[in-house]
Amino acid sequence: MVVANRYITIKTQMDGEPKESDFELRTLALDISVDPGSNDIIVKNLYVSIDPYQLNRMKSFSSSQKAIGFAAAITPGETIDAYGVAKVVASGNPEFEKDDLVVGLITWGEYSVLKEGSMFRKLDPLGFPLSYQVGILGFSGLTAYGGFFEVCKPKKGEKVFVSAASGSVGNLVGQYAKLFGCYVVGCAGTKEKVALLKEKLGFDDAFNYKEESDLKSTLKKYFPDGIDIYFDNVGAEMLEAAVSNMNTFGRVAVCGVISEYTDAGKRAAPDMLDVIYKRIKIQGFLAADQMLVYSDFLSTTTDHLRTGKLHAIEDISHGLESVPSAFIGLFCGHNTGKKIVKIADE
Amino acid sequence: MVVANRYITIKTQMDGEPKESDFELRTLALDISVDPGSNDIIVKNLYVSIDPYQLNRMKSFSSSQKAIGFAAAITPGETIDAYGVAKVVASGNPEFEKDDLVVGLITWGEYSVLKEGSMFRKLDPLGFPLSYQVGILGFSGLTAYGGFFEVCKPKKGEKVFVSAASGSVGNLVGQYAKLFGCYVVGCAGTKEKVALLKEKLGFDDAFNYKEESDLKSTLKKYFPDGIDIYFDNVGAEMLEAAVSNMNTFGRVAVCGVISEYTDAGKRAAPDMLDVIYKRIKIQGFLAADQMLVYSDFLSTTTDHLRTGKLHAIEDISHGLESVPSAFIGLFCGHNTGKKIVKIADE
Repeated sequence: MVVANRYITIKTQMDGEPKESDFELRTLALDISVDPGSNDIIVKNLYVSIDPYQLNRMKSFSSSQKAIGFAAAITPGETIDAYGVAKVVASGNPEFEKDDLVVGLITWGEYSVLKEGSMFRKLDPLGFPLSYQVGILGFSGLTAYGGFFEVCKPKKGEKVFVSAASGSVGNLVGQYAKLFGCYVVGCAGTKEKVALLKEKLGFDDAFNYKEESDLKSTLKKYFPDGIDIYFDNVGAEMLEAAVSNMNTFGRVAVCGVISEYTDAGKRAAPDMLDVIYKRIKIQGFLAADQMLVYSDFLSTTTDHLRTGKLHAIEDISHGLESVPSAFIGLFCGHNTGKKIVKIADE
Repeated sequence: MVVANRYITIKTQMDGEPKESDFELRTLALDISVDPGSNDIIVKNLYVSIDPYQLNRMKSFSSSQKAIGFAAAITPGETIDAYGVAKVVASGNPEFEKDDLVVGLITWGEYSVLKEGSMFRKLDPLGFPLSYQVGILGFSGLTAYGGFFEVCKPKKGEKVFVSAASGSVGNLVGQYAKLFGCYVVGCAGTKEKVALLKEKLGFDDAFNYKEESDLKSTLKKYFPDGIDIYFDNVGAEMLEAAVSNMNTFGRVAVCGVISEYTDAGKRAAPDMLDVIYKRIKIQGFLAADQMLVYSDFLSTTTDHLRTGKLHAIEDISHGLESVPSAFIGLFCGHNTGKKIVKIADE
């Protein structure tokens, strides 16, 4: 059976802020039956993850594009792979059958063809909403968990600062850090987000960075005894201000630099004298390196979810057409928590 | 007995390039006998270390001044403590007697009073020239050894880049790295220094950074397969270029940022996308944290010195009066190897 598969693509490579007109919805005929002898799996996409890193793949050049497979450049007109949850409609792979749920690299489209060797697995949702697989139980969760525990190596009572703290990863870092016994302050870009952090997610304090004119002084006020751990999702001035306020043997986990993605000229220039004299470690990392702690991450996170100690903050848009605006919104701070697009009902 | 103790001090705090007129030689009467009941030790200074970090102590403000005891601000008119070798002329401390050699924090002066609790110890030169205690067997050596082996965690065959490679620490990092089995390229600021690195110290290659207009391309040329370890003594553009050329899981040991000491506006803004996707670690460190490897450092270094595999590169000026010009020269690249002033004959 042939269907008209609709998918989102880019019209051209882009180097500044993404705009709606940079994207288009295309339709391509797709045979959703599988040829005899093929190992392909055809899936109907249900939920897809909307992540800032995709912007670096859409640029005409980014140093990230050569670094690792999933960050390769995106070709205009072609499908865009993204993490998500889908349901099998036809399978030539004996380990999968119709109606199985899968999680892994699908596409910003209605259907995807999963080739043997690409990243996906059968999904047991463990009683949680399917959308959790894209966020808190997916790479956002693993990034937060691995980044905080493995990269930052926290000790109880340490002072933790999280930027973009209401974002997909930041909100989880703050929650894990609180559950672990740290003092946690987050920053976000609206008063509603600040309230969420303090009132629902248990952050010790939070502030709206847009209301602050001197970030160094702001951080000094929130951390009179200094910062031990900075979980960086934004880069630029915030990284400089955090380094300036860090304690001896402080650690910076560099998870994302969203403020630099749309403006390559906007870069952090932290004071290296601080880095030396305070023996600060600045460490970039990817969730892909944290697979060793995956089972710890999953058991800890599901336990905390079941006891209600951890909250899944999701921001779900509906329909394939909403992918471009959902994506663009990431760079304007429109999302609260994990940005997901629900493509179809189960 | 009272002597006229001459010492070098600063006239005023300074914030740019140091100049001869910022310094003065003062004389103060010093009783070189010890009062009964005092634990003081009076020493005659023989060799003093001339180090870039002292400039940060001379500034009206530097973030380094509060970080650690030995980096405290220097008060104009007062003596300036510095690492060096001296000989006891009088001692109230039963563990020291006249003519003992000591190494530790003395002063840029002819005599020093060593108080109980300050940093010094009795010296056994182990058959090496006394000047070695200030450089290759002192903190320069420990900085290079601990920074390279403990902070960078090298593997044999890795590609190592060292900036200020003919300086006190850099030349030793390169030599240790070669002896360990790494591929080593250094940069320096004159063709004589470049020749020293390649011809005497065994670096695989070296270049004069002053002859290069695009450091990123230069490093690409010297490291077609990328840099695994960057031992940073200079900061600024060189750090940016190194990060851009680093391999996955690369390590940057931040030892000094001499190009930023005289110009606080000149800071490195490395591409954090590189830091993330290549999972680069940027780690500041001080030799003071490396005391756990001190005995390894000392035995390895003395062994290699005795077998002639390691070379002590020293740049010695003579007489207390030469301290200011020796110091100022550090920031113009006048020194080759460890800068030392010999104050007096043994």
